[in-house]
Order: sequence, then C-alpha cells, then structure tokens
Amino acid sequence: MPKISERGVAMPASPIRKLVPLANKAKERGVKVYHLNIGQPDLATPEVAMDAIRNIDRKVLEYSPSEGIRSFRQKLVEYYAKFKIDVAVEDIIITTGGSEAVFFSFMACLDPGDEIIVPEPSYANYMAFAISAGAVIKTVPSTIEEGFALPSMEKFEALITPRTKAILICNPNNPTGYLYTQKEMNQIRDLVKKYDLFLFSDEVYREFCYTGAPYISACHLKGIQNNVILVDSVSKRYSECGIRIGALITKNEQVRANVMKWCQARLSPPLVGQIAAEASLDTPEDYMLEVYNEYVERRKFLIDALNRIPGCYSPIPMGAFYTLAKLPVDDADTFCAWCLEHFEYEGQTVFMAPASGFYTDPNLGRNQVRIAYVLKKDDLAKAIKVLEKALEAYPGRVLE
Amino acid sequence: MPKISERGVAMPASPIRKLVPLANKAKERGVKVYHLNIGQPDLATPEVAMDAIRNIDRKVLEYSPSEGIRSFRQKLVEYYAKFKIDVAVEDIIITTGGSEAVFFSFMACLDPGDEIIVPEPSYANYMAFAISAGAVIKTVPSTIEEGFALPSMEKFEALITPRTKAILICNPNNPTGYLYTQKEMNQIRDLVKKYDLFLFSDEVYREFCYTGAPYISACHLKGIQNNVILVDSVSKRYSECGIRIGALITKNEQVRANVMKWCQARLSPPLVGQIAAEASLDTPEDYMLEVYNEYVERRKFLIDALNRIPGCYSPIPMGAFYTLAKLPVDDADTFCAWCLEHFEYEGQTVFMAPASGFYTDPNLGRNQVRIAYVLKKDDLAKAIKVLEKALEAYPGRVLE
Repeated sequence: MPKISERGVAMPASPIRKLVPLANKAKERGVKVYHLNIGQPDLATPEVAMDAIRNIDRKVLEYSPSEGIRSFRQKLVEYYAKFKIDVAVEDIIITTGGSEAVFFSFMACLDPGDEIIVPEPSYANYMAFAISAGAVIKTVPSTIEEGFALPSMEKFEALITPRTKAILICNPNNPTGYLYTQKEMNQIRDLVKKYDLFLFSDEVYREFCYTGAPYISACHLKGIQNNVILVDSVSKRYSECGIRIGALITKNEQVRANVMKWCQARLSPPLVGQIAAEASLDTPEDYMLEVYNEYVERRKFLIDALNRIPGCYSPIPMGAFYTLAKLPVDDADTFCAWCLEHFEYEGQTVFMAPASGFYTDPNLGRNQVRIAYVLKKDDLAKAIKVLEKALEAYPGRVLE
Repeated sequence: MPKISERGVAMPASPIRKLVPLANKAKERGVKVYHLNIGQPDLATPEVAMDAIRNIDRKVLEYSPSEGIRSFRQKLVEYYAKFKIDVAVEDIIITTGGSEAVFFSFMACLDPGDEIIVPEPSYANYMAFAISAGAVIKTVPSTIEEGFALPSMEKFEALITPRTKAILICNPNNPTGYLYTQKEMNQIRDLVKKYDLFLFSDEVYREFCYTGAPYISACHLKGIQNNVILVDSVSKRYSECGIRIGALITKNEQVRANVMKWCQARLSPPLVGQIAAEASLDTPEDYMLEVYNEYVERRKFLIDALNRIPGCYSPIPMGAFYTLAKLPVDDADTFCAWCLEHFEYEGQTVFMAPASGFYTDPNLGRNQVRIAYVLKKDDLAKAIKVLEKALEAYPGRVLE
C-alpha cells in the first residue's frame, strides 16, 4: 500500500471534529445536544434567496465565468459602497465560500516557506489553507485579560523575518468577537507599509458589530491598496452557509491575475449559489435588522449569564457571533468531551468548541471554550443552565 | 508593492483562455462564434434536477456534512453498482466538482516534490492542481498515429524514480476521446502493483462510450483496491457543470481520513448542487439514451466531416465528447487565434482549443486542436464548413 502524504498526516485534526462522534453517541442515547460549537446560524435564509432558487429560469445549469457572474459582482460593488468600501467590478472575484478566497489569497501571494503573521486565537482553518499552500503561520498571542485586543506592534515585529510576506486578520474576529479599533487598524497599516507586506483581511462578520464602535475595513486604510486582499462571504450575513459563495477583493492587479489562474483551474464557482447570493443582496432592511437585534439580545443574554457562573469569565464581544470564555476547569478539551460523554442534565447536554483548536501554542487557552450564540434565546438559556450544572458536577473543576 | 508568488507566475496560462478576449472581440464585431473549445454541453439539464431545485424544501441553506449528504452518497452506491463498481457509502466523499477531487487526491497522497506520471495529451488543469500541491507531473506521450493508445509500459518505467508516487489516467479520455482496453488497464494495474503506486483515475465520461468496447474502471482491477482513487463528477453526464458536484472514491481508509481533513477545512460541498445531483440520479433512461444517441450522431458527423477536409486527420474517438485532430497548419495556436481575429465566413467563425495546452512538451501537438462536439448537429455542420473555409484562406496552411 503506497504511503499517504506526510503533510496530510501532519495536519492537525480539529478538536471540534474529534468531539463529533461523542455528540452523535449522546444523541443516540436520546440526549438533547445544544450546538454551541459551530457558526451555523439557525435563522432562516432570506425569502428573496429562496425565491431566486425556486424560480430559477435556465435550461442548462452551465459553468459560470471563473471570476463569477458579472451582474452579481456588479451588485456587490453597490453593497460594498454602503460600507464605504470603494471597489470596481474588476476588483471582485467570486469564490467557492470565503474558504476558497483564503486559499487562493495564499496561493497567489505566497511561495512555499513564506510566512504569515496572525494574531491568535484565530480561525483554525487558516492553518489548513496555509499547509495546503506550503506557507508557514506565525502567531502573536492576544489575551483574554486584555479582551483579545490587537497585540502590540513590537510583538509582530519580533516575528518578522526575510520570509514574512503577510499579516492575516479577521475583523470582527472569529473566535473572539473582537472588533479592531481605528487606532489598531492604523497600526496594522503602518506595519504593512513599513515591511511591504500583504494584508489578508477576513471581514465576513461585518454586519455583526454591536457596540456602536465603527467597523474599519482594511479597504478603508489609505496608502496600502495594493497590499490589501479582502476575504468575504455571504454565508453568515444571510444565513446561507451551504451555498458556498464568497469573494476575494483586491485592487492589486497582479494578485488578481494570479488568483484568476487558480480560479480557471477549478473552472467556476457554484452557479445556483451565485444566483441565491445575488438575490440575497436585495434582502429587505427589516430582515437584516431583525437578525441584528436577535444577535444583540442573544449576545447580551449569553455574556451576562456566563459571567454569573462562578469561575467563568467572558469579555464582551463587540462583533461576530462568538465569544471565547474562560471556564473553571483543568482542561477544556477534557471538559467538552466529558459534557458529551458523561454528563446530562434533564436529558440535555452542550457541545462547545475547545479553544485549543484556535491556538497554535499548546499552552494557551487550555481553560477556554468558544461559544457560538447561534441558537434561539430559549435554547441558549437551557444550554447555559446545562453548562452551569456541568461545571458543578465536573470532577476536574478548578476554582481559583 | 509586495511580490506575488513565483509559483503563480510560473503557472502557464491556458491557450484557450488567451483566445477568449479574441472571441469576445469577434462577437462584438457581430461575428457568430461557434464554441468548439469547451466541454460545456448545450443539452438541457434533466427535469428531475431542475424540479429538485425549484421544490427545495428548506428554511436554512445550511452547511452540509464535509463528506457530503448521506442520502446522496447512498444513492451513488447504487449508481456505481450499475457499472459493476462495488463501493460502500463510506468510500464516497462528495467534492466541489471533479476538480476538487483531483486536488484533494494530490494533497492526500503526495508531498511536495513527489511525481505523478500522466500519459499526454492530458487535461490541462491536472497541471494546475499538481502545482497547487507542489507535485511534479511527468508525461509519457501518446501519438495521434496510434490513435492515442496507451504508451508502452517501458516508457512509463523509464520515468520512474524514487519520488514517483502515482499514475494518473483519464478514461474515457479528455482531450483525445480514447477508451483504454482491458489489456491496457491490466498493464496499468501491473505497473501500479510492481511499484506500489497510487492510481488516480478520472472517469467522468463513463456514460459516453460509443464503440461497444467495454468501459473498464480502475475500480474493476483486482488486487490494487488500496491504490485506486476514482475521480468523478456529475457535470458532464447530466449537463450540469455549473452545480460543481463531484466525488472522490477510494477503498483506502488512510487516504480517505486524510482527504477528510482537507474537506473539513473547506467546510462543505455546495448544498443546492448536491440536492440537484442526488435528484439527477433518477434521470429517466430515455433522457440518457437520447443524450447518448445525440453524441453518437454528432461524433459520426464530426469525424466524417473532419477526415474529408484535405490535410485534416482525426482518429475515431471511442468516448467522451472530444476529438484531437491534426490540421494542415504551421501552428495551431496561431491558426486558432487567426480564426477569431482575422477570419469570418458568412459572418461566422470557430473557436477551437489549440492542443498545445494539453501537452507539456512544447514540440508536441503543434498542428493539433481539440474539438468538442457539444453543439447541435446543424451548428456543428456550419462550424465545420467554416473550419474548411478558414483552412483554405489561412496564410500558414501546410499541405503535406
């Protein structure tokens, strides 16, 4: 039997994925499992998107252009203008989810061995795409004590080598919910300028900013327009993660030309998804507002409830729909597995994402979990009750 | 401005893509352009697929499982059984088009620097996926004189090094239309066994075999089931290239576990596409037969017509819907561009794919083009007439 690839073997399995079989077994035992582990909103996809699919008026479901359907890209120009992101239709390349936008950014800008600096905790799959592209991720830790604010520029600079080619940020942040301030974004801009780096900015949660603080896009930063590659997706904002439509946006023509080579190799992004996504751009304001208000309430409820549990602490996330919380436990991986395997309260348990999957340093975040507030408030309330009871019963409880 | 990746710069631009702007300009001049350059059938997608999309009964277009929807995979088991391909539901991983199946095969089985041997001419995008994965493609030329039959095993063996990890075939073949015989498949099997190689077998055109000769799947070969990775797609057989649904199939558990890591990183294949693809498996036999008969007629018409043009020669393709034909021209790249830029006959011209894009050796196939018979017979007839007139007028005509 031939040997499989070493890079595949080396690729870390996500701690969430390891827990999935345990969650399935719990369900088989008849236990109700609350999924706080994934960024799949329970909100309905907008009717305009569903209608566009139901009324599809085509004889042949043919390839679309490799860069995406032009009318959709055109409408995205208007969408971005609402956020004062000034892009032309040529700057926008449609991708198969935000995932592909990340991967193609890496492929187009980085060579094997090139380094990307990323504040951590960070979205786990960046690592997979970096491994795919042969690039190396170097992390700068942010801390729960500082509310996961941007680490100091000295810490970034300490990691810069001749192979450093890019900074990667996610704003609003998954998994922390942090929203970078104008001052922090300016610091990033200066760093990018000083070392002539690419800035990959994943801004798929821009609709979800809750504190009145402004959302500062990497595209708002002056003087680095050829450095910025914006990663976007319609998944979260229209609750349509399954259609796999994202976008890669850059003013840098060379990068675009290079990205297009990878786009052409995979032929085209999904056609029906693009039709749904284009229609989604006409989602009525009241849908967006309702969704927004729903998350505002869930967030308030969740953070208040978490911080009332003895030994728990969550900073107040400013955006996205996650929080990274500290629990009074010896080890969050063990605790999350234990909840699924050995605990139930009134026939229910919780599935949370251990934070270890968001850190590259195995010593960091050992007692942290990511909680996604993607459930209705009633369910969220029940889930937090279960968490409280689980913490009381957990043998590895650590009270400070 | 930071430098883009060298691998991106090194990636060859497809000669078809270079011609697209010329085709667009011809259309702007009011010239009717016959597209013989792409594998996008003009046939209607089956009604069962369209109905499944129109009747979609979901509130949330959510992520599907990373390995694809189980009921779809289950139905694929029955589909493959019709071709005596004996697979279990666990052996099937749904991918975003056959493209992603090729890429994930490479990522899971090969490390940077590992080598794949491919008979050429071959599908151009294999090269892009190999570059993405850091793998190296070595080619064994097949020749038009031998009808693009499998090159001798000695030629394969001459390329084997300690880094050789896999053989890649496409059967029925794009771009040649060749269908490997039982004897040839046995030779491949023996080679794979002797050197313990992976065998990537792209069999997306299995429905399109025209000569009564049997379709031999790599999965039919005994004794190498842990070596074989089958690449598949619903695109061509149901004329639904745009939904981006393919599959990677293997009995090798280690490979599957490794592929799943890349699947999980990109979260899920397109949901609506899977719904359409699952429904497509219930396409009535008479649709399939009608499509089949249509291609049989187009093929006969095209090959007869080509071989009647002085100086042209096309072997008889046994499958798929392409042929690689020799033209009496100095250089097919130049000729194809000239047709779009400088020629029209009664307001019409043709867009063909220069064969240079299917060879890695720049000396091979210089006077060959790939012609896709994806147009209605009437249009095909007009297109061939145009080709004949173009060859008469072309300044670089070479008569032997």
